[in-house]
Amino acid sequence: MISLRLILLVFIISSSAIAQKDYKLWLQFDRITDTRLASEYRSRLQGIVSFGNSETSKIATKELETGIFNMLENKPDVLSEIKGENKIIIGSRAVLNSEIQKSISSDFDKINEEGFIIKTILFKNKKHILITGKKEVGVLYGVYNFLRLLQTNKSIQDLNIADSPKTNIRILNHWDNLDRTVERGYAGFSLWNWQKLPDFIDQRYIDYARANASVGINGTVLTNVNANALILTPQYLEKVEALANVFRPYGIKVYLTARFSAPIEIGGLKTADPKDADVSNWWKNKAAEIYKRIPDFGGFLVKANSEGQPGPQNYGRDHVDGANMLADAVVPFGGVIMWRAFVYSEHDANDRAKQAYAEFQPYDGKFRDNVIVQVKNGAIDFQPREPFHPLFGAMPRTPLMMEFQITQEYLGFSTHLVYLPKLYQEILESDTYQKGKGTTVAKVIDGSLTKTKLTGIAGVSNIGNDLNWTGHPFAQANWYGFGRLAWNPNLDSETIADEWLRCTFSNQENFIKPVKEMMIQSREAVVNYMTPYGLHHIMDTGHHYGPGPWVSNLSRPEWNPVYYHKADKNGIGFDRSKKGTNATAQYAPEIEKIFDNLETCPEKDLLWFHHVSWDYKLKNGQTLWNGMALKYQEGVNQVKDMQNIWNKTEKYVDADRFREVQMLLEIQYKEAKWWRDACLLYFQQFSGKELPKGVEKPIETLEYFQSLKFPFAPGN
Amino acid sequence: MISLRLILLVFIISSSAIAQKDYKLWLQFDRITDTRLASEYRSRLQGIVSFGNSETSKIATKELETGIFNMLENKPDVLSEIKGENKIIIGSRAVLNSEIQKSISSDFDKINEEGFIIKTILFKNKKHILITGKKEVGVLYGVYNFLRLLQTNKSIQDLNIADSPKTNIRILNHWDNLDRTVERGYAGFSLWNWQKLPDFIDQRYIDYARANASVGINGTVLTNVNANALILTPQYLEKVEALANVFRPYGIKVYLTARFSAPIEIGGLKTADPKDADVSNWWKNKAAEIYKRIPDFGGFLVKANSEGQPGPQNYGRDHVDGANMLADAVVPFGGVIMWRAFVYSEHDANDRAKQAYAEFQPYDGKFRDNVIVQVKNGAIDFQPREPFHPLFGAMPRTPLMMEFQITQEYLGFSTHLVYLPKLYQEILESDTYQKGKGTTVAKVIDGSLTKTKLTGIAGVSNIGNDLNWTGHPFAQANWYGFGRLAWNPNLDSETIADEWLRCTFSNQENFIKPVKEMMIQSREAVVNYMTPYGLHHIMDTGHHYGPGPWVSNLSRPEWNPVYYHKADKNGIGFDRSKKGTNATAQYAPEIEKIFDNLETCPEKDLLWFHHVSWDYKLKNGQTLWNGMALKYQEGVNQVKDMQNIWNKTEKYVDADRFREVQMLLEIQYKEAKWWRDACLLYFQQFSGKELPKGVEKPIETLEYFQSLKFPFAPGN
Repeated sequence: MISLRLILLVFIISSSAIAQKDYKLWLQFDRITDTRLASEYRSRLQGIVSFGNSETSKIATKELETGIFNMLENKPDVLSEIKGENKIIIGSRAVLNSEIQKSISSDFDKINEEGFIIKTILFKNKKHILITGKKEVGVLYGVYNFLRLLQTNKSIQDLNIADSPKTNIRILNHWDNLDRTVERGYAGFSLWNWQKLPDFIDQRYIDYARANASVGINGTVLTNVNANALILTPQYLEKVEALANVFRPYGIKVYLTARFSAPIEIGGLKTADPKDADVSNWWKNKAAEIYKRIPDFGGFLVKANSEGQPGPQNYGRDHVDGANMLADAVVPFGGVIMWRAFVYSEHDANDRAKQAYAEFQPYDGKFRDNVIVQVKNGAIDFQPREPFHPLFGAMPRTPLMMEFQITQEYLGFSTHLVYLPKLYQEILESDTYQKGKGTTVAKVIDGSLTKTKLTGIAGVSNIGNDLNWTGHPFAQANWYGFGRLAWNPNLDSETIADEWLRCTFSNQENFIKPVKEMMIQSREAVVNYMTPYGLHHIMDTGHHYGPGPWVSNLSRPEWNPVYYHKADKNGIGFDRSKKGTNATAQYAPEIEKIFDNLETCPEKDLLWFHHVSWDYKLKNGQTLWNGMALKYQEGVNQVKDMQNIWNKTEKYVDADRFREVQMLLEIQYKEAKWWRDACLLYFQQFSGKELPKGVEKPIETLEYFQSLKFPFAPGN
Repeated sequence: MISLRLILLVFIISSSAIAQKDYKLWLQFDRITDTRLASEYRSRLQGIVSFGNSETSKIATKELETGIFNMLENKPDVLSEIKGENKIIIGSRAVLNSEIQKSISSDFDKINEEGFIIKTILFKNKKHILITGKKEVGVLYGVYNFLRLLQTNKSIQDLNIADSPKTNIRILNHWDNLDRTVERGYAGFSLWNWQKLPDFIDQRYIDYARANASVGINGTVLTNVNANALILTPQYLEKVEALANVFRPYGIKVYLTARFSAPIEIGGLKTADPKDADVSNWWKNKAAEIYKRIPDFGGFLVKANSEGQPGPQNYGRDHVDGANMLADAVVPFGGVIMWRAFVYSEHDANDRAKQAYAEFQPYDGKFRDNVIVQVKNGAIDFQPREPFHPLFGAMPRTPLMMEFQITQEYLGFSTHLVYLPKLYQEILESDTYQKGKGTTVAKVIDGSLTKTKLTGIAGVSNIGNDLNWTGHPFAQANWYGFGRLAWNPNLDSETIADEWLRCTFSNQENFIKPVKEMMIQSREAVVNYMTPYGLHHIMDTGHHYGPGPWVSNLSRPEWNPVYYHKADKNGIGFDRSKKGTNATAQYAPEIEKIFDNLETCPEKDLLWFHHVSWDYKLKNGQTLWNGMALKYQEGVNQVKDMQNIWNKTEKYVDADRFREVQMLLEIQYKEAKWWRDACLLYFQQFSGKELPKGVEKPIETLEYFQSLKFPFAPGN
C-alpha cells in the first residue's frame, strides 16, 4: 500500500511540478528505472567519504549525495573516514590521505590543473571509487562526470578515467544589457537582476553556476559586447562582486566587457586614446579597483571599432595599441583581454567577408601574451552555415579564441529546434592546412598546433529568465553541447546528443535513437529551409526574424541581403573566387584551390564562393534552380519528419515538455514553409523558371511576405 | 523502510525542487500534517462525482482530484454516479440530477450568477458534500473555496456555505508593453510572450488563469493603459484570441486598452474625433472584428487625455463624448468601457489632488450604461497612504470602479514586504457620507448604495515572469488579497492574511500568529519610514525608487516633490483646507469638516490637508518635528521587528523562501534607514532643529543621498 502510494506520489508530484523538469536542465537525476542496474549501483555506492572542507568540496559532496539519492532512492551516508568497502572517496590531491596519494601519484601526470581522475582503487584491500583532481574544481568536475555515468546508465565497475579540459577559457558571453534586455536573446530577459543585487542572491545564480560547472564552463562575461561603461562604476562593481562570490566555488570566473570610451564616460577624461598616459593609468587603476573586490576577476572582453563601438582607431591607433594597453592594466593580476576580431568597415564595401582577416592578420604576433583574439566561426555572422573563418589558419603567432553563437539569432530564435553542436563540430573539424593537412580549427583553438598557453572557446549565451532557461527545451542541448565542446573540441556531436538526451529525458533506446537522429538532422534542415547551397544573410532586417532576401534599402551596402545573394537573371551567389573578390586567397593554398574552383568547391558552400548560373548542373544532375527549390522543400520535409518523430515520444517524456516541443515544432514547420515560399517566390523573379515537381506551390504571394512587419521582435 | 524512504523522498524533492514552491503561489496543497484531521478528511472524501462535461467542469474535477491527493495522499476515485456515501458531488445547477436540484433549489436564491454553494446533503439517506452554482464557473469557484477549507484545516462537517462575488468586474490591469517591459513592473518582464503567440501556449498562461480563478478574479486587461494601437491589429488580435481561449474555461475575460488615436495610427483615418462618423464606424467595425474572434471579449480600458495620452479633448470633445462613442461600439456585444479618471492638467497647477474631481464630477449621470469610471483609491497616485478619493462620494449616478495598485510603484518595488490588503481595507472602509453615515467606499463600489448593475474593482498587477511571479514571496499575498477583496470588499485584511499564510506556508500557529502580525504591521511601517503624517509624493523622480524630497527641477510643477510637501522654515504640509486650495470641499460636508479642521483632521492625514508648524503639538505631546522624526525611526524599528519575527520561522518554511525573504528584509531595513535619513536631513534644513532622542543619527550626508542615481531602475 505504501509503496503504491510512493509511486503515485512521485507520479502526481511530477505532473503537478509545473515547469520543474524544464528548469532542471540536464541535471534531472531521475530515478533509474533499470532495477538490475540500480541495484548494482547501490551496492557500489554505499557511502561518501569527503576530504576537503572548501566551499567547492561541500558542493561536490552535496551534488553526489543528492544525485545518488534521487537516482537510487538511497541516501548515502557521508563519512569522515574510509571504513568498509564501496565508498566514493572525493577530495583534491592535497587533502587525500598519503596512502591513496601515493598509490595514484602517476595518474596525476595524466591531467592538467583542472582535470579529474575517477578511478576504482583498493584501499586496505577493499574496493572504492576515488574522484580526485589537482585542484578542488577538478574534483567537482569529476563528480559531475561520475554522476553523468549514472545518468547515462554506464557501468561503474573498474573505473579508470582521467580527463582534462583542452582549453583554458571556456566561457559564455552574455549580450545582456543593464536594463535586462538581451541583445539577440530569445529566452526572456537577463538573469542578472541588477536592481536587487548585491543583497539579493537569486537562486537562479546558483543554479546557473551549477549547470555551467557540470559541463566544465569556467567563465562568464556578464555584459553585452555593445558595452555600457556604467558596469565599471563602484555602484555596479559591488553587484558584479556579489555574482563573482556566488560563482567562485563552482570554478567560474567573472569577466566584463570594457567600453573603450569608459575613461571619458565615467572617468572624466577628455580622451580614451590608448597612448595617452592618463588613459592607461585610468585603466590600471580601474583594474586594481576591480581586482581588490574580485581577486580572481577574469579580465575584459572588448568589441572595438565595430558597428559603432568606440575603439583605438578613433584616436588614430590600431587594435594592437588598444588591446595591449588594456592587457598591461590587467596583467599584474593575471587578467586576460579577449579582443574581438568581428569588425567591418563601412568604407570598404568590397567584401565584408574579407575584412576581419584584412584588418587582423597583419597584427599576428604583435599582441601581448595575455591577449587572445576572439574570432567568430565564420567570416560573416553566425549564419546557418559558413565556411570556417580564414583567420583560424592565418595567425600562428597569436592565441585565437573561437566565438560560437549559442543563441539562435539567425537560426529561428528559440522556436526552431536546431542542434548546434553539429554546426560547431563542422567548423572545429575544418582543416586550415596551416601546417599541412590535418591542422584543424580544433587544433588551432586548443593550442596543440601552436603550443600557445592561452586558449579558449566562447559561446554567445542563449540563456534568459524563461522558466526553462533557453526558451526551447532543446536549446538546452546547445548550452550543454557548447560546454562539452569547449572542454574538448574533438568530441563528437552525436555522442554529446546521446549524453544530453539521457540526462535530460530518458535512457529508453526507443526514445534515444529516433530523437538523437532528429537532433542531428535538425542543423541540415535549417540550412535547407533558410539558406541552402551556401546562401547567407538573406534574413529580414534588424530583428533577423524570417526571410528578407529582397531587402536593399539599408544605408550600408553590406547590411543588405541583396549584397550577399546577388541574384540576377544570370544566376545567384557571391563570387569570392579569384575572378571575384578573391576572398578565397585568405585561405591556405590547399583550401583556396578547392574553394576557388566551381567544380571542386563543396556544394554546401557553392553560393558563398561563386556566382552560379541558374542552369548550372549540380552533382545530383539537377539544375541549380531546381536543386535549390528542392533543397528548400527538403528542409520543410525534414521538419515534418521531426514532428513525426517527436509525436511518437509521448510515453517517454513528461507532459509539459512533450507539449512544449510539439507546439514549437508546429511553429518551426510553419516558418520553414514561410522561408521556402518567400525565398523561392523572390528568387523566381530572377530565374524566371517554374518550381520543379515535388516542391509545394506557395499559397501566399511575394507581396504578402514582403508586407510582414515585426515591430517588437525580441532581441533587437 | 519504505515509509521512511517516502518521507526522505518528500524531503529531498522539496529541497531540490528549486523555486518550485515559490511558483505554486497559494496553491501549494501541502500534505496535511495533522494526522487526526487528515484521517477525518479522508473519511469524508471518498470519491468525486462530477456532473457536467465542459472544460470548466473538467478543470474543477482535476483540481479537486489533485488537491485532495496532494493534501491527503489519497487518490479519490472519480465516479460517474453517486454510490455509497461521503462523495463530493460537483456540477452546475443545470447538470445536477433532479432529486438534488429540487432538494437545494431554495439555496440557489442565496447566490448570484457567479456564486457557489458548498453544502453537506443527504442523497438516498447518505451524506455527501455538494459543490454547485448557477453556472459552471460558480462550481469552479466553489471547488477552490472547498480546497481552501482543507488547506486552512477547517472543519468540513455539515457544511452550508453560499457565497457570491459582490462585484461584477474583478480585474487585473497589466501595464505590460508589447516589447514585454512592464511599466512599474518589478517582477521581471511581461508574461505575454507575443512573439511565440498564438501557437505557443506557455504553461504559465494556464497557471496564471488558475491562480486568478482560485481567488475569483474574472478579468484581465492584457496591455498597458499607456497604450499601443498595434494590439488592435489582426497580427496581435490573433494572439489575444489565443490567450482568451486559455483563460475562458477559468471564467476569465480578456480586455484590452484602447489607444484613442488608433483610428489614425492603424486605421488610416485623419482624425480620432469621437463625433466623426468615420471614427465611430471604425471603432464599431473594430469591435465587431474583435468579437468575431473573441465572443466574450470584455471591453476596453481607456486612459485618455492624461499624461500625454491622446483623447477626446484633442478634438474639443470631452470624456463623456469619448467614452460613450466607444461604449456604443461594444454595447451590441455586451462589452464595457472602463474609462479612467486619473487625469491632471498641466495648465491647472492649483492642486493636482482636485483635478480628477473637478473634471469628472460634472459628468455624473452622463455616461452610457456600459461605461464605468475607474478611479484610483486616492486623489494623487498610489501613495503609501492617501485619504480616499473624493469622487467616490460624488458621482451617485455613475458606476465607479476602484483602481488599486498591487505593484509597489511607491512602496519599495518588489523588495519591500508591504501587505497591501491593509491599505485597500482602509480605503474601502472609509465613509463617504454620500447618503449619510455608513456609506462606505465599499458600498459605492459594490453597487449596494446606488443599485448600479455595473460594478468592479481593478488592481494594477504586480505579476511578471520572475519564477515566483511577483518578485517578493510576500507580494503574492497582495495579488491574493486583491482578488479576495474584489470578490468581497467587506472582508477583513487580517482574515485574508491568515488564509494566505496557511495556504502558502504552514498551518502551525507558532508560525501564523507572529507572521500575520508582521504582515499587518508592514503597511504602517512603510508609511512611517517613507511618508508619515500625511506626507506624499516625495520619492525620487521617474523611477520612483527611494527618497527625493529635494526634487524641484521638473518641468511641470506638480511633478516635483517640493510641490507636495511645501516644507519651509514655518512648517510643512499641503494646505488643502478652506484657507488653502479648498480640496476638502470635494468631500461630503461631514468629512469636509473633519479634514478641514487642524484639530479634528486625523493625524495620519495631517500634512495631506494642512501646512503645519514645526512646533505644532501632536496628540502624543511631541512637536511635529520631533514626532515626524520619531515616526521615521519607528518605521525603521518596525522593519527590524519584522526581521526578528522572520528569523524565527526557519523551521516552518522551506529553505529557499526562508532565505529569500530574509535577504529581502535586509534590503528593506537598509532602505528604510535610507528613507529616514535622507528625508530627515532634508527637512532639517527647514526645521533647523536637532533630531530628538531615540532617532539614530544619519551616517551619510544629505549631499550623498542627493547624488544617488539609478539609471536602470526597473519599471520606468
